[in-house]
Amino acid sequence: MTAPVRTQVAIVGAGPAGLILSHLLAAAGIDSVILDQRSREEIESTIRAGILEQGTVDLLATIPGSRVHTVGQRHDGIELRFSGEGHRIDFPGLTGRSVWLYPQHEALKDLLAARLAAGQDLRFGVTATAVADADSLRPRVQAVDDAGVAFEVEADFVVGADGSHSVVRKALSGSHGGYFREYPFAWFGILCEAPPSAEELIYSNSPAGFALISQRSETVQRMYFQCSPEADASAMSEAQIWDTLQERVPGTSLVEGPIFQRDVLRFRSFVARDLRRGRVAIVGDAAHTVPPTGAKGMNLAVADVLLLARALEALLLRGDAGPLDGFAEAASDRIWKAQHFSWWMTSMLHLAPEASEFDRQRQLGELRSVVGSEAGRTYLAEAYTGWPFA
Amino acid sequence: MTAPVRTQVAIVGAGPAGLILSHLLAAAGIDSVILDQRSREEIESTIRAGILEQGTVDLLATIPGSRVHTVGQRHDGIELRFSGEGHRIDFPGLTGRSVWLYPQHEALKDLLAARLAAGQDLRFGVTATAVADADSLRPRVQAVDDAGVAFEVEADFVVGADGSHSVVRKALSGSHGGYFREYPFAWFGILCEAPPSAEELIYSNSPAGFALISQRSETVQRMYFQCSPEADASAMSEAQIWDTLQERVPGTSLVEGPIFQRDVLRFRSFVARDLRRGRVAIVGDAAHTVPPTGAKGMNLAVADVLLLARALEALLLRGDAGPLDGFAEAASDRIWKAQHFSWWMTSMLHLAPEASEFDRQRQLGELRSVVGSEAGRTYLAEAYTGWPFA
Repeated sequence: MTAPVRTQVAIVGAGPAGLILSHLLAAAGIDSVILDQRSREEIESTIRAGILEQGTVDLLATIPGSRVHTVGQRHDGIELRFSGEGHRIDFPGLTGRSVWLYPQHEALKDLLAARLAAGQDLRFGVTATAVADADSLRPRVQAVDDAGVAFEVEADFVVGADGSHSVVRKALSGSHGGYFREYPFAWFGILCEAPPSAEELIYSNSPAGFALISQRSETVQRMYFQCSPEADASAMSEAQIWDTLQERVPGTSLVEGPIFQRDVLRFRSFVARDLRRGRVAIVGDAAHTVPPTGAKGMNLAVADVLLLARALEALLLRGDAGPLDGFAEAASDRIWKAQHFSWWMTSMLHLAPEASEFDRQRQLGELRSVVGSEAGRTYLAEAYTGWPFA
Repeated sequence: MTAPVRTQVAIVGAGPAGLILSHLLAAAGIDSVILDQRSREEIESTIRAGILEQGTVDLLATIPGSRVHTVGQRHDGIELRFSGEGHRIDFPGLTGRSVWLYPQHEALKDLLAARLAAGQDLRFGVTATAVADADSLRPRVQAVDDAGVAFEVEADFVVGADGSHSVVRKALSGSHGGYFREYPFAWFGILCEAPPSAEELIYSNSPAGFALISQRSETVQRMYFQCSPEADASAMSEAQIWDTLQERVPGTSLVEGPIFQRDVLRFRSFVARDLRRGRVAIVGDAAHTVPPTGAKGMNLAVADVLLLARALEALLLRGDAGPLDGFAEAASDRIWKAQHFSWWMTSMLHLAPEASEFDRQRQLGELRSVVGSEAGRTYLAEAYTGWPFA
């Protein structure tokens, strides 16, 4: 065992949450070390949803070299489609805010480049195995580097930004400590070489099931359709995939193109029971998972990180533990609102296998209620574009 | 068999729907005959919810002798209570509309007196047994009077306003034709002699289950709490009932008094598959049942009746079948929005026996989202106070 690495904040995970946290801490004069078991190339090829709330974009834009305003695309609305008709939700008109389409791997490239240029201690290929002494003033991350050498990072505070299979979470409430929900369906997602089929996202509730027509760039598109959680992504031909998508978005002629990636995304909702214990906290996917329908994943991570950065500044710079003591409750407030919104969008738009005819008609009654009311559209748009950060 | 009674519109059921329909038809110069198996006294003692939308009140106020504005009480809001705090939904501030508390049996007294004073042919103690020749120009109601004498009412049109066990509905799509949902809970309702415990209705989501603190008059109150559908209304002592209610409305000290009526209200959602066939239609509870949480029952009946009265005027006075052909679709639009609202209020406020900890936290996240957003409060208030009548 080599001598421990010493820092103020040990961050496990170099995803959006960990990288943004290190940026905010550095701006406040707090040192951190980031560990990630993946290589830089693996991190930069993470394919995730790319809808960013206005507040997330505003934060990313403060990071040197960020391309969010140049490569990212502002979206001023989405379309909800059902019963053969499309209904636009006009975000700026209803809330004064927009969202941005900026794929997560692009944001990660910006963040990694900026942090490395700033001299961040960022170690790839390092696997955190446990967190020790969570209740002490010097918690430690136990890790193994890519040469198999074990070492420790000793810090004033440890943050788990290490995703849904978080190792740090086990130091809080064990591996199973949380609130959990599964859904009886998944998304079949594709990336294809084609121009956009629509300018804005189309969320379509069709009798055959849900589909989402998304965009990525002028030449690459991302689309999804509801499938069984047991679906085999390799089992469908390209023609079958296009037929399925087209059937579920009646009224729009999809522009087809070669499909170069396909995957099945399982749906789950999860919130860890404990977001903090002593001098250890978890943020982002380590703390919660949302189904993708509400486009809340990365935005919720940013909200966590903003709260935690403020709490760590108070603790480490001013010796004030107050904000940290309130961190879990403050974060939970937004997390559960986002969990509700994600569940709501999911249940309103998908065809549940067990749904009765009553459920189906009620769902269409709900969609008519929402789009037929400015208040209903505003309530949805407020959540989609993001509640103000605390 | 005696000779058939002849009229333009045969109405089965002297509840709010049937009586208001006969009033609207008479105002347009169309004769009707109303049959009801109950006595006048039985009808006038029907205990039902008494929340009326503004549009319903405006219509009742046009009926000679109506006391809706004198005995009824305007309510400018409700309170949603959860996590130990109350949150008022300000109806006029959000929507410009209010609701009125006017118990259904009081409305029925007004309606019966007005129709009888106007010379309405209204036959009590007459049981409709079937509807014949629905697809002809002269459909007939087959009935038996209280002396056991069978007779028929032959009409240009037959309307079933005969409640959830509708006989007329069988002429449309059989006794089981419809969309149906049951709920895993019921309401334990009481009437007690006491002054009001609150000025407006309190809908309380508590860890022990839902409760509704309602009012009736200065000396009589109506309150409910969530119970098992198998609950025995006679099994609880008065002290146990008050303890249960009080536990579920923390923060308000309920004014107790002798309980003189108690009942268990089963929850069901139902919409008949066919609302019209040929010259027969159903309205009100015959066409749909909603759980009471949304306070939509009688209001939805009034909406049906307004649409049908207009359609019958077009058909019988001008020979125009167009509005009648559009009746089922137009009525369904509001029915399913109301079904959704009733389901939403029910699922947001009750504790489902099978709910997981995730569901419970999500429910509280939803309640915070709704009350924390003016758009959310407005969306709820629009539905509660009632969408404008078509």
